[in-house]
Formats: sequence, C-alpha cells, structure tokens
Amino acid sequence: MGALTASCVVIGNEILSGKVRDHNAHHLSVRLRQRGVDLQHIQVIPDVVDTIAHVVAQESARSDVVITSGGVGPTHDDLTYRGVAAAFGYPVERHPQLAARMASFYGDKLTPVRLRMADIPSPATLHDAPGLWVPVVQVHNVFVLPGIPALFERLLAALDHILVGVPITLCSVYTQQHEEDLATLLEAVVARFPAVELGSYPRIGDPDHKVRVTLESRDGDAARAATAALLDLLNPALLVRVER
Amino acid sequence: MGALTASCVVIGNEILSGKVRDHNAHHLSVRLRQRGVDLQHIQVIPDVVDTIAHVVAQESARSDVVITSGGVGPTHDDLTYRGVAAAFGYPVERHPQLAARMASFYGDKLTPVRLRMADIPSPATLHDAPGLWVPVVQVHNVFVLPGIPALFERLLAALDHILVGVPITLCSVYTQQHEEDLATLLEAVVARFPAVELGSYPRIGDPDHKVRVTLESRDGDAARAATAALLDLLNPALLVRVER
Repeated sequence: MGALTASCVVIGNEILSGKVRDHNAHHLSVRLRQRGVDLQHIQVIPDVVDTIAHVVAQESARSDVVITSGGVGPTHDDLTYRGVAAAFGYPVERHPQLAARMASFYGDKLTPVRLRMADIPSPATLHDAPGLWVPVVQVHNVFVLPGIPALFERLLAALDHILVGVPITLCSVYTQQHEEDLATLLEAVVARFPAVELGSYPRIGDPDHKVRVTLESRDGDAARAATAALLDLLNPALLVRVER
Repeated sequence: MGALTASCVVIGNEILSGKVRDHNAHHLSVRLRQRGVDLQHIQVIPDVVDTIAHVVAQESARSDVVITSGGVGPTHDDLTYRGVAAAFGYPVERHPQLAARMASFYGDKLTPVRLRMADIPSPATLHDAPGLWVPVVQVHNVFVLPGIPALFERLLAALDHILVGVPITLCSVYTQQHEEDLATLLEAVVARFPAVELGSYPRIGDPDHKVRVTLESRDGDAARAATAALLDLLNPALLVRVER
C-alpha cells in the first residue's frame, strides 16, 4: 500500500547503562501506529559522533522518515546535531533565527553556553511547537528531537502534518486456549488472508487470558473477515472477548 | 579496560507497532550494568528472517555477547531461531535432548506443534534455568531468550557465569542549578579526569532537582575524586544531594 515508513534512533549512554529508562521510543511507536505510519526499526546508541552519523545515515536510507531522541542539550555529551550533520557531510553552524528566538526567550540570561543550542546542522529546516523555543531540526528526512519526554511528545505532535500514513484496522481476540493449541489454527487464517498480519501474544499468570491474537490490516474488511474466520476455529467455551 | 561488551536485539512486530511495550531491553541494561558489562547497542526489529539474520550477524561482530529477546514460541510469527541460524549459515534441526525434556515436561500434551519449539539452530549450546524446560539457546556468541518478561528475567539470571564484566563505580550529584550553567564546569571536570564519564540529565518540572550529574568509572578512586572536584565548582546553596 506504500504507507509512510519510519525509523527511530534513541541517542544516550544513560539508556544503554540502565540509569534512565527510555519512554520516547514506545510513545513514538504508539503515535505512529495511530497515524498509520510503519515503524520499521529502533536503534539505541551511545553519545558518539561517528556512531550517530553511521546509524542516522543507515536509517535515513532505510525509511521515509527518521525520528531521533536525545543529545541536543548544551553539555559535552550532547552530540546529536554533530552526528546528524556528519551523516550528510554538513557543517554545524549557528542558526541566526534560532539564536534570535533564544535571545527573546532567555533575555539577559542568554549565555554563550546556552547559545550552543543554536549550533545545528546546515542546511536544516525548523519545525516549531507552540510555547517552546526549541524546534524540531529537520535535515533531509531526519527529524531531531530532545530526549526529555515532555519536550519529545510536544515536538512530535508538531509533526502531525508530516507523519501521515494509511490507517490500520486492529482486531484482537482474547482466549484461554494455549498458544501451542492455536498455532495451526492461526496458520490456516494466515494462508487464507494474506493481507492480514496475525500476531500471537501469550501471557503467563494473567487470569484474564492466556493468549491475545491480533489481526491487523490496512484493508479493514479483510481484518474483520479474518477475525470472523478465526472465531469459527476457536473453542467458544474458552473465548474471553473480541475487540474489532 | 577491556570489559565484556554486549548488544541487545529485541525481535517483535508488536513492539514496533506499540501494541506491547518492551521491558526486556531495560531490564537487561540494568542487569548488565550491575555486572560491569558494557551494553553498546540495542536494536528493535520485526519478525522477518532476513532482518533477524542480518542484524544478529552485525551485532555478533560488534560485541562480545549478543542477547536476543522474543520470537521463540510455536506460532507462525516466531522466527528468531530461523533468523539466528541463517546469520551463521546453519540449519534448524530438532534437538533430541530438548525434545526429550519437553516430553517429560508436557507428557501426553506434547503435540507436534509444541515440539516445534525444539527445532533450533544446529550446532547450539543450551543453558538451563531452574524449573524451566525452555533453555537459553546459544549459537556462537548469541544467546536467544524468549520475550515474555518473566521467562526472560529467569533465563538471563542463568547466564550470570558468562556475563562477568568489570564493576563500575557510579556517583551522582543532584542540583537545582540549570544545565546551561553547568556545562563549562562539567567540561573542566571532563578535561581533568579522562577516565571518568560524565553525564548530565536535566529534569523539567521535578521539584527535587533540575539536573542529575553522573560520574562513572571502572576506576572508583577517579570517580570519587572527580565528584569531589565537581562539588568544589558547584553552587553549594543549590546542591540537593550526592550519592557516592
């Protein structure tokens, strides 16, 4: 169907060392799904310019859009702008309009260190969110967002006009049947409905259900027909509920 | 210092689509840090054999050990064993001892579909956890674990004898100073203590502190000396607390 594809690159030693738990990749995955955009790949990488450059270039070639999270503050370990610039062979330069916006935001408190946050890849396109001086910095198909979740979420919402995919219909079937007993039934449905993606998610120790089966498609009628076909094959006495 | 390095590969469309939130990568990052092992890279990828094979081969070359999560159940979307086998040009074959263990666990309930879970890359080494029939399947430096968090955690604990690194000392300084005001101070400490890694983590809207600065090193004395040097530079009136 040629829907928009996306990759996510999370940049930060603190995620890899477990000091901080990343929230942005999951938030992005939910948001992209709502918008019908296919998230293909997530990478979590350290604050190293060469690594950032290599991974950003790789994901830029793989997906229609790349969203990065983290590494855009003023301290020595904030290297994402340098890495993204290097991915495309661009310099990092002071952006006059961004510096001017910071000046009006910070007033007397605009120090040279703060102004470093106006040093971004050149050329770049800026996308603004209401009430924030910090923009999304776009270089080619790469969108650079800060790692602080509250900022990430507000800036991601400002990209809604770009992140436009094709809606996906999701149906879910919850059952007390064992996953092993479902496998051949699921294969029969997979064979009959090639446009529908089936997923099987077992739970251990959950009194509500043993398995959730998901049936997804950009063809909503196919998703619903596959769900009906699956229900014909399941043991009705062990069925918990259906969402469609 | 040549400590053990690790990569993590999370396999599952359900993570990329936001239907399920991954917990295993964060659990692994915390556990590896406790054991002094350097987690270098995390990738989250779909249930596609070729993608699994490519990414596993890439991470196997990058790091000393690779931990994978997910895709080892009995259904059509469980393709991790096939992908890991393909990464090394190996076949997938029924493993007699694993099949025998499943037979003693399942008894009369051992169906052909369940037995698929004994079809693993060959050759492979198995690592057992107490009370579980499902093992960690090791192929070269790649360790394949199931995605269900309760199983992942128990099986990861069974690898403690392999995941042996060099302990890291972590000191943390919490302050109400702004990150922008800290940047040059941090750079002075970075320049003076090359063996210490400094991280700066701002919080928005947290009454407790504005920034957490972390100072980490496998040289514990250096980490503590760098912390003392940083404290000399900070505004004592805005210091919240120190952990060391």
